[in-house]
Amino acid sequence: MAPATALEEYRNWHGKIEVVNRVPIDSPAKLAKVYTPGVAAPCKEIARDPALSFDYTRRGNLVAVVTDGSAVLGLGDIGPEAGMPVMEGKAALLKSQAGVDGFPLCIKSEDTDDIVRTIELLSGTFGAIHLEDIAAPRCFEIEARLRDVLDIPVYHDDQHGTAVATAAALVGACRATGRELEGARIVIVGAGASGISIADLLFSLGATDIVLVDREGIVGKKSAQCTDYTSGIVARSNPRGLAGGLAEAAAGADVLIGVSEAGAIPAEAIRSMAPDAIVFALANPTPEVMPDEAKAAGAAVVATGRSDFPNQVNNLLAFPGIFRGALDARATEINDAMLAAAVDALVGLAAPALDAEHIVPAAPDPRVAPAVAAAVASAARESGVARR
Amino acid sequence: MAPATALEEYRNWHGKIEVVNRVPIDSPAKLAKVYTPGVAAPCKEIARDPALSFDYTRRGNLVAVVTDGSAVLGLGDIGPEAGMPVMEGKAALLKSQAGVDGFPLCIKSEDTDDIVRTIELLSGTFGAIHLEDIAAPRCFEIEARLRDVLDIPVYHDDQHGTAVATAAALVGACRATGRELEGARIVIVGAGASGISIADLLFSLGATDIVLVDREGIVGKKSAQCTDYTSGIVARSNPRGLAGGLAEAAAGADVLIGVSEAGAIPAEAIRSMAPDAIVFALANPTPEVMPDEAKAAGAAVVATGRSDFPNQVNNLLAFPGIFRGALDARATEINDAMLAAAVDALVGLAAPALDAEHIVPAAPDPRVAPAVAAAVASAARESGVARR
Repeated sequence: MAPATALEEYRNWHGKIEVVNRVPIDSPAKLAKVYTPGVAAPCKEIARDPALSFDYTRRGNLVAVVTDGSAVLGLGDIGPEAGMPVMEGKAALLKSQAGVDGFPLCIKSEDTDDIVRTIELLSGTFGAIHLEDIAAPRCFEIEARLRDVLDIPVYHDDQHGTAVATAAALVGACRATGRELEGARIVIVGAGASGISIADLLFSLGATDIVLVDREGIVGKKSAQCTDYTSGIVARSNPRGLAGGLAEAAAGADVLIGVSEAGAIPAEAIRSMAPDAIVFALANPTPEVMPDEAKAAGAAVVATGRSDFPNQVNNLLAFPGIFRGALDARATEINDAMLAAAVDALVGLAAPALDAEHIVPAAPDPRVAPAVAAAVASAARESGVARR
Repeated sequence: MAPATALEEYRNWHGKIEVVNRVPIDSPAKLAKVYTPGVAAPCKEIARDPALSFDYTRRGNLVAVVTDGSAVLGLGDIGPEAGMPVMEGKAALLKSQAGVDGFPLCIKSEDTDDIVRTIELLSGTFGAIHLEDIAAPRCFEIEARLRDVLDIPVYHDDQHGTAVATAAALVGACRATGRELEGARIVIVGAGASGISIADLLFSLGATDIVLVDREGIVGKKSAQCTDYTSGIVARSNPRGLAGGLAEAAAGADVLIGVSEAGAIPAEAIRSMAPDAIVFALANPTPEVMPDEAKAAGAAVVATGRSDFPNQVNNLLAFPGIFRGALDARATEINDAMLAAAVDALVGLAAPALDAEHIVPAAPDPRVAPAVAAAVASAARESGVARR
């Protein structure tokens, strides 16, 4: 239970976001423009060409931040309304970091068809969709189906945001320890939305040796995580055909990435890794292994999800700039090239001061969103998914 | 086609509403409160009791302004995206008149089940639902089904807003001409969302003799407008069993209310009415009959929907204050008692300066929303639908 003062503060805020007017209605003349009869002109133009809704309404700067409340923070399935403080927080960060209007929505259903249909029917309102805190493996199908039916970007922060921030940090950690991504032995502990998506992005960035591990052991074709939407990634993983669990996967590994829960990485697994090992313990609020323990076991670079240790891997490095860039280019999707561009931008920002305790920019850093946005917009145009 | 400048203005506005932060994220400490780890406390509280979402998120001040784009202004079925400038206008008016956050949403379907289900699934996000510009007779079923499944207020402006503003104006017009609502012969020209809802509210205020007329003639059991959701009102109408069309209905009538289209009320119909006749010609932008023509045909009181003639019947008199009152009382619905209270408040504001050219307050009038809100909140409490 949090101290009463934190809840009192939330109660006094009456929400972290607010809808305000961009056009003051301070005269009958202004009223006649904002409402009838003046409003008929943009209505008729949009009826002629619905794409003009990006110009004549807020749509061009507006992102829906949507959850079903099924996998909120480390709290789990707490229900749609209970997820909303997180969605409002994400919306507030979109605005403060990147000037994007985020509007939080919760859907009172955990049925995949319901969630897909609801978002599809609302898609004419928004310029992009930010999925948040939807449980795996449902989130993969929801995202894939929405990408099929929508012509606006669909992004799931627990997949793509985590993957971009983690990949940027890993590229930095490889540089700090004199490694290449290609050939590095990478073990991902946790095969949910984040783990699968990190593997996916790392493969697209050139990684070749990734082993996924969950509570049942090394993930293979027969794992519960291997669905229609994840089987391609599972099939590319574990190229040396290891059998067993974390102990077998970690032996000789260069990189351990925990996206699991407190305690999931024992010190002995780190001790069995290659020299100058890289350990990311990203569970929040309690990492899979504490940084001092990981260092004592031989890790050369340690990252966590927390702001009170060096090397915070924070989705805040990714999502505001990615949406800013996608909206600026009026992209129809967020593709691998755009995610890779976001990684490159973050790596570029970290490079001048790179060392084992500074593998990624700190968050919040006002340079981050503009740099990521420019790279993402550029990649959207180069990959042919930009409409301007 | 509007002059280019009006469209340019819309283009420069980039939307009439915007989502902004209520809590500045100006330090790592504030970030930790707005987002993780601080956000976990309100999440856990709402998980315990979802009603606390009204306190810990923006929900308690937030209204969805929802359309399917099927009956927008006088433009008709122009599609969901094309309806959005009107929805943004409504949201802007909710804020400027009553401090309510309105968020515009369009639904890309005209299927009743789709619309009901979408709003139901989103209802945990909002404190109330404002339906707008949804075609009749579908709108009646949508509203009725939503009232059944939701525990937040559902309001359709084309029904309830028009009915409240019209009823207030009619009470004023009756006073100005020495009439009572009871016994007055009232003819409503147009039996869509507005016409049916005006009849409904006038019955609940004591009217006894209402005849509905549409293009096919006097509305009866066999009319297309007589559905499961409107048959009760149709059955109460036409108590004298008139047959025929507008000519037969208007002969000797005290009141003609047009909610139809330009030209729908001919001068000869007005000439056949009782002395000191009341004529409301509410079609926009061109009334069913122009005020000078109605006056010349013998009308003692004329009202229109336009701001450039006396007696403007404007929904702006109704919806901002009704939502402010409903949210202030945290009402679970907007019932007849609350609509009647809104009418009373408007009549009370008009009373001190009442004459044939001042039967309702002018819009916008800063006194209106607070007076309506107080009356509506009070009626919500007295009728047992308030949660505070």
